[in-house]
Amino acid sequence: MNNFRMYVPTDIRFGKNRLEELPEVLAEYGKKVLLAYGGGSIKKSGLYDKVVQLLNEQNFTIVELTGIEPNPKIESVREGVRLVREHDLDVILAVGGGSVVDAAKVIAGAVFYEGDAWDVVVDKSKMSKALPLVDILTLSATGTEMNRNAVISNTKTNEKFGTSGWELIPKASFLDPENTYTVSSYQTSAGSADIMSHLCEQYFNRTQGVDVQTNVAEALMKTVIQNTPLALENPNDYDARSNLMWASTLALNGLVGNGAGQGWTCHPIEHELSAFYDITHGIGLAIVTPRWLKFCIEKDDSTHERIANWARNVWNIIEENDEKAARLGVRAMYHYFKDNTKIEMTLQATGITTTEKVREMSELAVKHGGLNSQNPYVPMTENDVEKVLLDCFEEMTVF
Amino acid sequence: MNNFRMYVPTDIRFGKNRLEELPEVLAEYGKKVLLAYGGGSIKKSGLYDKVVQLLNEQNFTIVELTGIEPNPKIESVREGVRLVREHDLDVILAVGGGSVVDAAKVIAGAVFYEGDAWDVVVDKSKMSKALPLVDILTLSATGTEMNRNAVISNTKTNEKFGTSGWELIPKASFLDPENTYTVSSYQTSAGSADIMSHLCEQYFNRTQGVDVQTNVAEALMKTVIQNTPLALENPNDYDARSNLMWASTLALNGLVGNGAGQGWTCHPIEHELSAFYDITHGIGLAIVTPRWLKFCIEKDDSTHERIANWARNVWNIIEENDEKAARLGVRAMYHYFKDNTKIEMTLQATGITTTEKVREMSELAVKHGGLNSQNPYVPMTENDVEKVLLDCFEEMTVF
Repeated sequence: MNNFRMYVPTDIRFGKNRLEELPEVLAEYGKKVLLAYGGGSIKKSGLYDKVVQLLNEQNFTIVELTGIEPNPKIESVREGVRLVREHDLDVILAVGGGSVVDAAKVIAGAVFYEGDAWDVVVDKSKMSKALPLVDILTLSATGTEMNRNAVISNTKTNEKFGTSGWELIPKASFLDPENTYTVSSYQTSAGSADIMSHLCEQYFNRTQGVDVQTNVAEALMKTVIQNTPLALENPNDYDARSNLMWASTLALNGLVGNGAGQGWTCHPIEHELSAFYDITHGIGLAIVTPRWLKFCIEKDDSTHERIANWARNVWNIIEENDEKAARLGVRAMYHYFKDNTKIEMTLQATGITTTEKVREMSELAVKHGGLNSQNPYVPMTENDVEKVLLDCFEEMTVF
Repeated sequence: MNNFRMYVPTDIRFGKNRLEELPEVLAEYGKKVLLAYGGGSIKKSGLYDKVVQLLNEQNFTIVELTGIEPNPKIESVREGVRLVREHDLDVILAVGGGSVVDAAKVIAGAVFYEGDAWDVVVDKSKMSKALPLVDILTLSATGTEMNRNAVISNTKTNEKFGTSGWELIPKASFLDPENTYTVSSYQTSAGSADIMSHLCEQYFNRTQGVDVQTNVAEALMKTVIQNTPLALENPNDYDARSNLMWASTLALNGLVGNGAGQGWTCHPIEHELSAFYDITHGIGLAIVTPRWLKFCIEKDDSTHERIANWARNVWNIIEENDEKAARLGVRAMYHYFKDNTKIEMTLQATGITTTEKVREMSELAVKHGGLNSQNPYVPMTENDVEKVLLDCFEEMTVF
């Protein structure tokens, strides 16, 4: 096990009917609030009205930043920074999914940086302190509600980068599973695929002696596999929504990754897809992950044992031969996404109908993600990424 | 899943060779330190010298509280409070196992209470704020290093009570697996039994829809089962010690219990054993737990399914009939403790040679633990506890 620091001081308020705690939590940081959110979904669900009413009753000043999109854009961040400075705001309240929270994090960090906000995305060392951030989560997916990471896109430069800072960790996160009842089937499936990918990226590592992390990752994967179909079948299944919400938080708060370092692979590849085509992050991950695992099996025999154990422990594969078990595990994951969560498993279904940018995306994935270094589980060349991406245009039939 | 708050702001510094971070961590709270520890083990291992040298180099003032015993006594707490007040100390540094940290927590909380320290053990509402606490853990067992609980004994009154407070959570915990290399086989086994008991107490609950908690508890139990024999075989097995250390922390930091409320049973019963006979806590738990599970199976058929799933998922029992599977799981646990971790599984082996106090302990366990309420997994009368305790005087042969 590697050395690690785990410091996650986010105050998690999990469960239903506890929004009345919000004013007290916010007031600890001030009464002038940047209310950041996305489109109209929180207005349609009534959450927006409840929040505004609660804060108005307690004489908070609210300045709104609206229109934060999926794959949040640097323009939203710049606008947020401008609003915070103009109105001398004390605290950010992000209401929405991972995109809203990520944008809010970078606003919080960029407020104290004099240059352009994109600089702190490219170079996290430019952030020193941050405005306090509180969030109300409405989507189970990214885990941003309990960590120090954020991902921002720059559509002008086709770049989608992650940034990070201890000071970006939300002060408090309100996780009410009922706020995810209105999430569509499509977004529910995409969110679960995102959670599964976070767990896979951390699970497939070469660190010795990480049984805690391995076993906990398997536990969370099984939880997602059990509960996603239940939430799809009955969107108001409180327990299913609860398990997905809490699993998504724990999947990326350090619990699974700390002590078991390894570079990520599918995320850097998907980040190029989203940067070029603005596709749904989780769907891209669902499509890329099984092709990547197949690549690992075929490129590097030393992966067979671990992928086989994953297949046996998570997907209940009964097969003694490691390579066969590993391949059966990949097949199980592919068909789970396709059949149980109804994700269309080719890039065409996301609207990417041509392979013309595959080479460019492959080169950038290797460059931005350091995929040809020793960091990833299996190092990848541009040709390797290109092959995986081209595989994503075909249904998988051979595993 | 129940509503819960999870707020665990302890700064975990996990791994080896990072003690040089200690002065900076402590200095955030002040330079006048109460150094609390137990017997001579940290002197023998050299840890005491390293800590004192580091702090002296940085001009800390050190006042020592030594002799904190297993099942820490209220007298140690009173002495600590006196020293903090007399020397106007800023911060407590606890170096040791759960007993030392627990005593330090109650010292931290009692300093600001004017009356006798035992009052805040009996009534936690008497604590309001606390002195900051940093610890260096030397035993994998209680999980106190990342939670707000403490257990203190009063040998005058034969009482052993838990107390709790948000302000008691350690500010930082240094978890170096190498500091557990010198832990004896006996204490290693006792510590692992303590972890297993924490997980069982939380795992056996009746809350619906707690897959995250259930699966994570199983993951941690498997980790303990895998790694304890490795640590016993080779006390300097870094990875085995790491997994035990991190599993012990996660077993009781809220991860497994939050959202899945249930009253505990084996701990209240064991607390009477320790209060009356001062036996090793973990050994008492190892002895009580399988008898308690057998009691559950025989008292309440509705427990069979859950105990059977535990048997299958944690102990790899292959048996379709729930009651049979449950009984096979109890047998597996009993023989694991006895054969794989070399715990002598009767109360006689702890030095309790007479049953004369069993009735009194049973009555107090029910009273102190609320065992006849609806809180425990299976409510227990005084007669039920008496039967379980009497069973602890015989080797288990029928499961």
